[in-house]
Amino acid sequence: MIKPNTLVMLVSEKDKTYFRVVKEEGSLNTNEGMIEYRQILESNFGQQISTHLGKTFYLLKPTLYDLVKSVKRKTQIIYPKEIGYILLKLDIGPGKKVIEAGTGSGALTTALAFMVGEEGKVYSYEKRENFSQLAQENLKRANLQHRVEFFNQDIAEGFLQQDVDALFLDVRTPWDYLEHIFKAVKPGAPLGFLLPTTNQVITLLTHLENGPFYPPEVVEILLRRYKPVPERFRPQDQMVAHTGFLVFSRYIEKK
Amino acid sequence: MIKPNTLVMLVSEKDKTYFRVVKEEGSLNTNEGMIEYRQILESNFGQQISTHLGKTFYLLKPTLYDLVKSVKRKTQIIYPKEIGYILLKLDIGPGKKVIEAGTGSGALTTALAFMVGEEGKVYSYEKRENFSQLAQENLKRANLQHRVEFFNQDIAEGFLQQDVDALFLDVRTPWDYLEHIFKAVKPGAPLGFLLPTTNQVITLLTHLENGPFYPPEVVEILLRRYKPVPERFRPQDQMVAHTGFLVFSRYIEKK
Amino acid sequence: MIKPNTLVMLVSEKDKTYFRVVKEEGSLNTNEGMIEYRQILESNFGQQISTHLGKTFYLLKPTLYDLVKSVKRKTQIIYPKEIGYILLKLDIGPGKKVIEAGTGSGALTTALAFMVGEEGKVYSYEKRENFSQLAQENLKRANLQHRVEFFNQDIAEGFLQQDVDALFLDVRTPWDYLEHIFKAVKPGAPLGFLLPTTNQVITLLTHLENGPFYPPEVVEILLRRYKPVPERFRPQDQMVAHTGFLVFSRYIEKK
Amino acid sequence: MIKPNTLVMLVSEKDKTYFRVVKEEGSLNTNEGMIEYRQILESNFGQQISTHLGKTFYLLKPTLYDLVKSVKRKTQIIYPKEIGYILLKLDIGPGKKVIEAGTGSGALTTALAFMVGEEGKVYSYEKRENFSQLAQENLKRANLQHRVEFFNQDIAEGFLQQDVDALFLDVRTPWDYLEHIFKAVKPGAPLGFLLPTTNQVITLLTHLENGPFYPPEVVEILLRRYKPVPERFRPQDQMVAHTGFLVFSRYIEKK
Repeated sequence: MIKPNTLVMLVSEKDKTYFRVVKEEGSLNTNEGMIEYRQILESNFGQQISTHLGKTFYLLKPTLYDLVKSVKRKTQIIYPKEIGYILLKLDIGPGKKVIEAGTGSGALTTALAFMVGEEGKVYSYEKRENFSQLAQENLKRANLQHRVEFFNQDIAEGFLQQDVDALFLDVRTPWDYLEHIFKAVKPGAPLGFLLPTTNQVITLLTHLENGPFYPPEVVEILLRRYKPVPERFRPQDQMVAHTGFLVFSRYIEKK
Repeated sequence: MIKPNTLVMLVSEKDKTYFRVVKEEGSLNTNEGMIEYRQILESNFGQQISTHLGKTFYLLKPTLYDLVKSVKRKTQIIYPKEIGYILLKLDIGPGKKVIEAGTGSGALTTALAFMVGEEGKVYSYEKRENFSQLAQENLKRANLQHRVEFFNQDIAEGFLQQDVDALFLDVRTPWDYLEHIFKAVKPGAPLGFLLPTTNQVITLLTHLENGPFYPPEVVEILLRRYKPVPERFRPQDQMVAHTGFLVFSRYIEKK
Repeated sequence: MIKPNTLVMLVSEKDKTYFRVVKEEGSLNTNEGMIEYRQILESNFGQQISTHLGKTFYLLKPTLYDLVKSVKRKTQIIYPKEIGYILLKLDIGPGKKVIEAGTGSGALTTALAFMVGEEGKVYSYEKRENFSQLAQENLKRANLQHRVEFFNQDIAEGFLQQDVDALFLDVRTPWDYLEHIFKAVKPGAPLGFLLPTTNQVITLLTHLENGPFYPPEVVEILLRRYKPVPERFRPQDQMVAHTGFLVFSRYIEKK
Repeated sequence: MIKPNTLVMLVSEKDKTYFRVVKEEGSLNTNEGMIEYRQILESNFGQQISTHLGKTFYLLKPTLYDLVKSVKRKTQIIYPKEIGYILLKLDIGPGKKVIEAGTGSGALTTALAFMVGEEGKVYSYEKRENFSQLAQENLKRANLQHRVEFFNQDIAEGFLQQDVDALFLDVRTPWDYLEHIFKAVKPGAPLGFLLPTTNQVITLLTHLENGPFYPPEVVEILLRRYKPVPERFRPQDQMVAHTGFLVFSRYIEKK
């Protein structure tokens, strides 16, 4: 049985997806008919529910992938294909403390908060107040807001933390903030950057070369989807060709 | 100060990497000179160490990415680009219980064990004893072995667990084991599969269509590396073109 | 000076493109204003022309690329990225005789006719009359129709030619026509196939293995476009992810 | 029957390829045995020939693809995947006159000479004499040398032709020669450039913006090979990830 105030995902056979925090009263209205919240509370995840028009919906617990893809957004978000790789490169896991800037709509924030667990902490900086607000709503929806400290301020003033385990910058001119990084992270801490243009990568690489940084890695991650039809198995016609370049390095103490 | 029996990573300026569990006595011998373990124990992560020939090495704590890439292997391993995406799709995080088969060399096992934390558990099946042994050594090296239960047995006999949160199959004929999945996972649990050939994907899709499964997603993930030289920024000449197709679905209860 | 009845291409600064066979009288009407055909006839290729609203258009001779991209279409066309590679693999050049089926909208037909020159010949089969008609109009527009013989008939009856230099099949079940190929082409002739699904490629490969064919090559060609903005140089956001698989082989005589 | 002094291609069942200009006397010696030239002259293309050890070779007329791939090289060559696209964008076909620089090993030169036919002409510039010599040998081997005029000189001095139909530059700093282009090509002529690094593309785009040039197109072409095994159809493990960026534009007369 699903408890009230749980975030659920309902997917129709036509692959239309709805996310709802289920209350004791109310209903979900779709083009394929209506589902009473009471029906949902009396069901379990992994079951099928019928609308009043007899259409079938799958009742599912959103995965981290679903949470990230469904954040309400006013910005370009970081996609799961990049987020997964970032987690491994930045060594994010239970108990870790990590800084990110800017928060944006909170897609990466959601994944970081999910992975650091109750013992870890995410420090998320965003100078534009409306984005910071939006991200906080997204984290609240996912019930992960208590693992994040939001800072609605410019990182030009530096970071308020010390000795964090990792740091990720998704900002336009990350090279402007390199000196603040040293004060905020543990020596050897993994660092990540997302940049949409080659010009930005070139500028960042130039600054990283001045050290003290570990030789950087620059990658792009491409996701190719296939039509899941066994009789006509083939790639989809269109794909996302570019979200950004990922740059990874680590802060090294001078000798 | 680094404690004895810690796994450390030493990287030369020529990008040659060494992993060692540092003991109180002993040394690392490289083409660029020798480093005493005592030197390492007296240093901190993020520092630079000199060999007796005066060559510089970076002393680093391995990230999850480093752990995965450095597993001793007798099999093809699952790469970080796939592992990251699998974590998000399978909703792996602190406290989760997850089944995987086959264990192989333990690359994915390492990442799963890292992410489920002290409260979670990984159940890893492998019928070939030498691989199971190798994986256990790799997990021990990463100090994650206590989060994994290894089963050196064929999954044709089914899984010993019930109500696990997620399941991943990296086996040659996953369609042979679909009936066992229902008994092992929670309803709605996310499921993942890795398959190298289109023929296998076609066969799996045919079986999944018979249900009761959520409409599957089939993707490929491509990683493109760039030479990190700011004056001549360009993609690398060669790339890994194919590791496998990832298939994701979820177990849905029949009406 | 441009002669009447010439095919010209006019491109606005907003990158809107118009193709017209210019007559002695008449005009081109665009959202950015009107251009009299007389203006065009008094200009030369490579010049700029103004509409009556003062907007600039480039007057250009269409390249083969432009011709192919602008064929009027009722079918999926073969793209320039594939056509170029097909030309090299099939050894198409001045004087060559080549069979293709089906004609479709005539995109590949246009390229083949362009390349074989006045001494060569293209034999193009298409069983659906409306497509054959459309292709003939497209070839006429490009003034290449006299280099092509169109056959509005099913290739299940075989081909009418013998000793042609090369053959290309863009049909749904090419394996049904392999026996007809031997009678139509020179021994050793290069053969090409375009197939959208992996299932079709698998079936074709199975038939080719039965011989007598040269070991096949299977490739996919991906085109990645970049935004040509020097200050923000980056790949475009979306790309065509799949048009089809190209299979190449050669007919080998049995011993 | 094959005439003496013909270039032939012999491919073993193990996919080992040999190119030879067959003389009246002599032989081809391979690891799989010896084939007398007389045997070849008494055979036809598309036939199978046995070595004195009984191993089978396919006797084939090299296609343009084969010619390009087999040029003797001292430089990076332009690959067929790029060459095909260049031909369409530059409108190369029978009768066309085209300039290229640098000649390099002559791979693109071969394709251009093949396509312009007996009526066309290729003007190929290369300042390094050893490359120019090598390219001439490659063109001679393909019996296409009479369609090419080689210029062993620096294009800093400009081009000697006027009113050519198209021009391609594969040089390190193409922006240094833009002013020479105007004098050499017809107005509206298509222009192409190959550049390995993003920095070079950025610099070229900056110069092209100063005009008078048609808005440029920047693309990359990726070729993905598949293992042609019907029971295990899958992409190859490794691929060429980058050869260069292609930039296309057209020379437009100032108003």
